[in-house]
Amino acid sequence: MNELEIRTATPADIPSIVAMLADDPLGAQRESPDDLTPYHAAFRRLADDPNQHLVVAVREGRAVGTLQLTVIPGLSRRGSTRAVIESVRIHADARGSGLGTHLITWAVEESRRQNCQLVQLTSDATRTEAHRFYEQLGFTASHLGFKLSL
Amino acid sequence: MNELEIRTATPADIPSIVAMLADDPLGAQRESPDDLTPYHAAFRRLADDPNQHLVVAVREGRAVGTLQLTVIPGLSRRGSTRAVIESVRIHADARGSGLGTHLITWAVEESRRQNCQLVQLTSDATRTEAHRFYEQLGFTASHLGFKLSL
Repeated sequence: MNELEIRTATPADIPSIVAMLADDPLGAQRESPDDLTPYHAAFRRLADDPNQHLVVAVREGRAVGTLQLTVIPGLSRRGSTRAVIESVRIHADARGSGLGTHLITWAVEESRRQNCQLVQLTSDATRTEAHRFYEQLGFTASHLGFKLSL
Repeated sequence: MNELEIRTATPADIPSIVAMLADDPLGAQRESPDDLTPYHAAFRRLADDPNQHLVVAVREGRAVGTLQLTVIPGLSRRGSTRAVIESVRIHADARGSGLGTHLITWAVEESRRQNCQLVQLTSDATRTEAHRFYEQLGFTASHLGFKLSL
């Protein structure tokens, strides 16, 4: 693998991130890469919240992966802080290169650095390959994930 | 049902909240109601974060329910903000009284008020009664929830 950098996303990364979010069987139906206005507004909300970490994985100057890590304090589990991973995407050109493992391993290490005791994520029930991937990285599919659109 | 108030938790609510977290088949193994020190520290982290909403449901001066609502901005789904519900508990004396429905309905309404487009939660795979409950309230069990303890 060529040299890879994982760094905080900047506004200049928004088009690449949205293109990755949209280039996906589920994402294709719910993203609007031709109108970036709502993404710029959302980026400002993310940047204002110190518990949000939106990152890109960059190789040879190109964003080839992204994820969002959120740090959530809480009372349960003896006052545990948990990290939630959302919106994991790997660019089509970079799939199968070990980048996903690299990115999730980074997120787990960063969660430790942020003093989290638990890392969690949900994955659509149809993404069976992703489920095997997370189990190989040590995650347990112990929960059901419920969603309600407003 | 007697008059019920749902309000932001204060430090004085910590013993009641921890007692509810611990009075649960899963919680019994992972809480320490006899040592509240880590919970007070966690409460301060929650209080410092404007996107965290730890609430108690109070009836006749007693805390009979609790949940934590977290507001998470993000780029995916056209810059949607999502709400995550965690650590839902109903006091043993108050179960079967409709309080759970009242509390989750409050959380969904509060998520709307906070301009969220999605509400999500995970529920341990063993909590089959809870799963029916969330489905009755309109949630869809579309995802698997993965966890990794650090």
